[in-house]
Amino acid sequence: MNLLLFCNDDRLDANKIVIQGRRLEHLQKVHRAHAGDTLRVGEIGGLTGEGKLLNITADRATLAISLQHSPPEKLPLRLIVALPRPKMLRRILRTVAEIGVAELHLINSYRVEKSYWQSPVLNSETMRELLLQGLEQSRDTILPLVHCHPRFKPFVEDTLPALITGERALLAHPGNTPPCPRHIEKQTSLIVGPEGGFIPYEVTSLSNAGCEVVSLGPRILRVENAINYLIGRLF
Amino acid sequence: MNLLLFCNDDRLDANKIVIQGRRLEHLQKVHRAHAGDTLRVGEIGGLTGEGKLLNITADRATLAISLQHSPPEKLPLRLIVALPRPKMLRRILRTVAEIGVAELHLINSYRVEKSYWQSPVLNSETMRELLLQGLEQSRDTILPLVHCHPRFKPFVEDTLPALITGERALLAHPGNTPPCPRHIEKQTSLIVGPEGGFIPYEVTSLSNAGCEVVSLGPRILRVENAINYLIGRLF
Repeated sequence: MNLLLFCNDDRLDANKIVIQGRRLEHLQKVHRAHAGDTLRVGEIGGLTGEGKLLNITADRATLAISLQHSPPEKLPLRLIVALPRPKMLRRILRTVAEIGVAELHLINSYRVEKSYWQSPVLNSETMRELLLQGLEQSRDTILPLVHCHPRFKPFVEDTLPALITGERALLAHPGNTPPCPRHIEKQTSLIVGPEGGFIPYEVTSLSNAGCEVVSLGPRILRVENAINYLIGRLF
Repeated sequence: MNLLLFCNDDRLDANKIVIQGRRLEHLQKVHRAHAGDTLRVGEIGGLTGEGKLLNITADRATLAISLQHSPPEKLPLRLIVALPRPKMLRRILRTVAEIGVAELHLINSYRVEKSYWQSPVLNSETMRELLLQGLEQSRDTILPLVHCHPRFKPFVEDTLPALITGERALLAHPGNTPPCPRHIEKQTSLIVGPEGGFIPYEVTSLSNAGCEVVSLGPRILRVENAINYLIGRLF
């Protein structure tokens, strides 16, 4: 936790916050924080700054805060990912928030198991918690927007073309396609398939909707590794 | 498992192999393989090709193999990482093999907990198993070399300068340093610190040993994400 995030409910008044639960436990066990310590704090959706720990007990910590810095900028990136299995989804949600993706779309695909759409990870409170963990890591305060599209065809035919109008859309897909471009600075949509890849019908549909099919080379990377690798390459 | 890896002990004769244990279980449960199916196979340290499943029972599968392709090339990269906590180390070992790192050095740092060096993940059989899982993912057959350096000072003063002679060595460290370069094609050593970063004495030592200190920008990424991100950026 490189940033202690708080929300409006944690405010005692304009300059004081009270922390409980998981964040308090982290302060106690990992930071071993004491009254008088100064910590980096950030308001969810707002500014970051410093918090001075006024007191810390078994059930609450009170901090005096002063906020002056903007959070780091988001990447000009809309990430569109075939819904991964729940364990990987947890890591991807953290990563997406950590690395600065502005918008995440989880979509269906032939190779997405139907049960994944029933995963409790997709519960909005669980997602929010995982995204917050990512923000805490990279000292960001702005939650990425997450959208779920449990039907492939309406997404690709009706939603995607409008989303990507006027921007570049790249579909990372193994095979004999042009290599993924490097260091593009403009607004981009990046589409990453499921383990095992999109099926040919899906690749054709995405391509018809305006996506360029690009390759990462001869290695097939796991989805979470591919996302970090591609972001390093693109931005 | 995008590649069924085997070793010399699995050979029945020059053109047949017998598979048991975890790999057999994967063939049964994930691939749901039947006699007559064709699978991608690779010999550890050797070529890849096709294997035709002759028969599969509860305790063994026999395949007729024909090998003709070289594995994908390794990156011109020596990765030097402060030993992470065991759970992350497991993921990093898989990732390193998957993404094509040729050589991994695990080093000590002030912020590496001493207990990490006693982790059973560092057992050579466990490491080999995790590296093989990475190779299976990206259809590689060549195990990366892994070296452990449980003492920081002798590594940096005696070992590192010889390792990096004539090549570029980059130390990814948060702060106000030049940004990490992009798309360098030559042989490179990349050094990534522990959670919380190297301490100033360590940064100075690494810098004195010939490393350029470079930044990833304002976000502090978890080690595993930083590795994938940096590799995407560098190669």
